[in-house]
Amino acid sequence: MKHLQEETVQSKTIFEGRVISLLEEEVKLPNGKKSTREIVKHPGAVALIAFTDENKLLMVRQYRKAMDKILVEIPAGKLEKGEEPHVTAKRELEEETGYTTDNLTHLISFYTSPGFADELVHLYVAEDLKKATEQASLDEDEFLDVLELTLEEAIALIGTGEIYDAKTAYAVQYLQLKSVLGE
Amino acid sequence: MKHLQEETVQSKTIFEGRVISLLEEEVKLPNGKKSTREIVKHPGAVALIAFTDENKLLMVRQYRKAMDKILVEIPAGKLEKGEEPHVTAKRELEEETGYTTDNLTHLISFYTSPGFADELVHLYVAEDLKKATEQASLDEDEFLDVLELTLEEAIALIGTGEIYDAKTAYAVQYLQLKSVLGE
Repeated sequence: MKHLQEETVQSKTIFEGRVISLLEEEVKLPNGKKSTREIVKHPGAVALIAFTDENKLLMVRQYRKAMDKILVEIPAGKLEKGEEPHVTAKRELEEETGYTTDNLTHLISFYTSPGFADELVHLYVAEDLKKATEQASLDEDEFLDVLELTLEEAIALIGTGEIYDAKTAYAVQYLQLKSVLGE
Repeated sequence: MKHLQEETVQSKTIFEGRVISLLEEEVKLPNGKKSTREIVKHPGAVALIAFTDENKLLMVRQYRKAMDKILVEIPAGKLEKGEEPHVTAKRELEEETGYTTDNLTHLISFYTSPGFADELVHLYVAEDLKKATEQASLDEDEFLDVLELTLEEAIALIGTGEIYDAKTAYAVQYLQLKSVLGE
């Protein structure tokens, strides 16, 4: 695949933050010319399609500063350094929703924005949920509402434009497919 | 939703690049405490679920510097300043694949990484494709291969981990759902 590959000529770290880092790289294109790439480094994340015993989908409503909007999303969180994704998934489920489980299945992993970021989201299905804590134990800068929605309610939220992030849209579509297949 | 909202105390532009900008913001949390947010600003993008008359799905194989990998994705591209998404969609389809169409339907729009970026992807379904040009007319720093895959071949690529970005995974799942429903 040499006709597609780029080589790094120079890599400059512009910013190292709490969550992301930013690099500006000079690259040699397949035709020998030079260009620049702006790259966000992210530790990766997990997200959960989690059902209660009443077959309700757990969702979290939270404010997102990047778009200055309140979004409804499936539970998710960043990987801590060196943490295995399934450990993060179990931890985030309990922290964000107060539910715990030993029944976690990896569904798919995908890059969210391959054009400018290396963030990889690992998506899990969580079943056999147990109420672990009365109150969710959140990060100190994290504020959210936990929602328990039927599939119809979740689809309706997409219709109104109230859900609109990629992992959540994928999760809702996955459940539709499962429901149509009668699984 | 005041119990979720954050207020901007201070906003600092760290970087303004060709594609993205980076802000570091100090925010007042709902409990009155302070925190910081790292925010990537992106112009937004379109992506296309595009079928040929032979019912093949158009995909592009390209190198992505952020993860130093070659990915197979559905055709996509950034919005130019002030450009309407359906105009971008028509333009990117022709530039990347050499096909054109007047039959574009908006399917869904979703944020790709709401935790740190405002990128919004507008996903379109493109049908009644016509071969417009022999050679795709790409940006000067863009190199890609055009693939035409059956749904089964696209699903198989996900199985091998060769496709793994959110918009493409969503597109393949959408086609599965459509196929199961017999549409």
